[in-house]
Amino acid sequence: MPKWREAVGSISSLDLRAMEKARRRQERLTKPPGSLGRLEEISVQVAGITCDPLPEVRDKVIFTVAGDHGVADEGVSAYPKEVTAQMVANFLRGGAAINVLARCAGARVIVVDAGVAAELPSHPDLRNFKLGYGTKNIARGPAMTRQQAEMALDFGIKLVEEERKEGLDILGLGDMGIANTTPSAAVASVFTGLPSESVAGRGTGIDDATFSHKVEVIRRALDLNRPDPSDPVDVLAKVGGFEIGVLAGITLGGAFYRIPVVLDGLIATAGALIAYRLCPQVRDYCIAAHLSVEVGHRAMLEHMGLAPLLDLGLRLGEGTGAALGIFLVEASVKVLREMATFEEAGVSERSS
Amino acid sequence: MPKWREAVGSISSLDLRAMEKARRRQERLTKPPGSLGRLEEISVQVAGITCDPLPEVRDKVIFTVAGDHGVADEGVSAYPKEVTAQMVANFLRGGAAINVLARCAGARVIVVDAGVAAELPSHPDLRNFKLGYGTKNIARGPAMTRQQAEMALDFGIKLVEEERKEGLDILGLGDMGIANTTPSAAVASVFTGLPSESVAGRGTGIDDATFSHKVEVIRRALDLNRPDPSDPVDVLAKVGGFEIGVLAGITLGGAFYRIPVVLDGLIATAGALIAYRLCPQVRDYCIAAHLSVEVGHRAMLEHMGLAPLLDLGLRLGEGTGAALGIFLVEASVKVLREMATFEEAGVSERSS
Repeated sequence: MPKWREAVGSISSLDLRAMEKARRRQERLTKPPGSLGRLEEISVQVAGITCDPLPEVRDKVIFTVAGDHGVADEGVSAYPKEVTAQMVANFLRGGAAINVLARCAGARVIVVDAGVAAELPSHPDLRNFKLGYGTKNIARGPAMTRQQAEMALDFGIKLVEEERKEGLDILGLGDMGIANTTPSAAVASVFTGLPSESVAGRGTGIDDATFSHKVEVIRRALDLNRPDPSDPVDVLAKVGGFEIGVLAGITLGGAFYRIPVVLDGLIATAGALIAYRLCPQVRDYCIAAHLSVEVGHRAMLEHMGLAPLLDLGLRLGEGTGAALGIFLVEASVKVLREMATFEEAGVSERSS
Repeated sequence: MPKWREAVGSISSLDLRAMEKARRRQERLTKPPGSLGRLEEISVQVAGITCDPLPEVRDKVIFTVAGDHGVADEGVSAYPKEVTAQMVANFLRGGAAINVLARCAGARVIVVDAGVAAELPSHPDLRNFKLGYGTKNIARGPAMTRQQAEMALDFGIKLVEEERKEGLDILGLGDMGIANTTPSAAVASVFTGLPSESVAGRGTGIDDATFSHKVEVIRRALDLNRPDPSDPVDVLAKVGGFEIGVLAGITLGGAFYRIPVVLDGLIATAGALIAYRLCPQVRDYCIAAHLSVEVGHRAMLEHMGLAPLLDLGLRLGEGTGAALGIFLVEASVKVLREMATFEEAGVSERSS
């Protein structure tokens, strides 16, 4: 049995006892109950995910998964295809936005080659899970075979398994892949039922003509491939991408190993959405870091019933929003762990 | 001439050349232009504040200013008055939410006694600027004398002056004072012109009856004292608070010494609003960290034309939202400083 089937069959619910203990502790801390809003909720969720009423978030990893896309040949992006491999090199040298923001959050960045259309040099921070040299063009046929889609899911779970041995406490999803907002919007359209014009965005910053063309390309990909929404692996194979599949697998792996999964923007969420459609319980392990400028992102988060923590007009990907989200999650569990209670601090309680 | 008059007369505009240089660098960094949204804008603002196109945010301070309020006698809070002094002790022992979140952001917490109704022990992190043992009850007369209000402003500027000698790069505003949402809402009402029911909130969590009573108390305080909106010192003296006045002074000090001022919630923003009404240029030096649950907060931010970075359902004060905001500001300037440019990274630029 492939790993992903095993994961889907055994992801269980959050630990309600740990959550209740965390919630009771939040009420004893020296602040009006509920006054730290979302931070309190997140700390309780992390308690439920980790089965620990006083969870800690020490080892933090952002998986920035890269892949190329045949659909880039349709001219749907503002940047040439070779930028994917160039940006991977930038990640490995520490010069990209994700490197800076991960350092701010105290997180490691693990770069994953899920299917970049170039040979990449070996590097201690690069994991080689190459599924091909870019997907096929979804405007002309399926992105990948069903076998490749299943391998992508298993690779994602394997990545979590490996880092778990190093003591992983929280993971963030990140992506890199020129043209990857196109398959992500296609995935969003299939699962939300919204037409392509309602889920397509400007990606890296395309003009009006390119945008209209992109909407048309997504529509054509959906009409031609007819992905089956009741079969998420079929959707991934037909209109997805290699990095999207690995991100779906990482999400399943996070839920399977009870590690909080911090989403990023459109592409990361397309991956998480595939995992969610394979196993709705996955949702409880997900924390939506931010709301992207890309319109399809909101539709997917709403579909999953997730409320983003941040809304800063980000549309970069790489895991940049996830890095900021990880900081907030760590802050939330530190509040739970490190604040004094009313008794400890000798502070009087409510008089009314 | 009092310090505050000197500051008001000499706060100048942002450095447009530094901002232009920062903006141009943002466009050369390896990401689609504008794709980091608010983070890019904030980095440019900090460049303008500090006159440095590549600013750094190393020494970070949150001023948590405490004071008591005579209006607590009207029963407008869910907590007894002695909690103000008890919480100051909690801050100094490091057990409060602000201590935890400031540690997360790498910021120091400086606690200021602006007028707590108790003798406080001396402590290296406590500054003594006691203006009285709590203000007078605004439902029966003015909160303080005009002289006390002017002293509060000068004390705030002095606090910034002292920390600036230690190398202060950014400051956050924080507050502590049982019943202080009542004078803050009164200040909001005077300057925004909104009635008390549109700016009053639930504070630490009062019930419906106490809320109606609080609205009535604010209305009575405004009817009785008739603060003059064209004279911000009069507003502070008649319906403000000692910590609100010191926070207004800190805001003036930040703008005067060109140090970014990160606002917190309702009370901190009431202080910043007084500074803004004394000198509208102050606004450019302010960064709104978050939107509080307290309704009057939104009205004040809109009045000042400030858009909050976060909306996490916080309503605690102490500078907790400011601590999270300082993290985001630091992240924004690190992106500007540490990311590679397209040339440095050998990444291809836009093809369309």
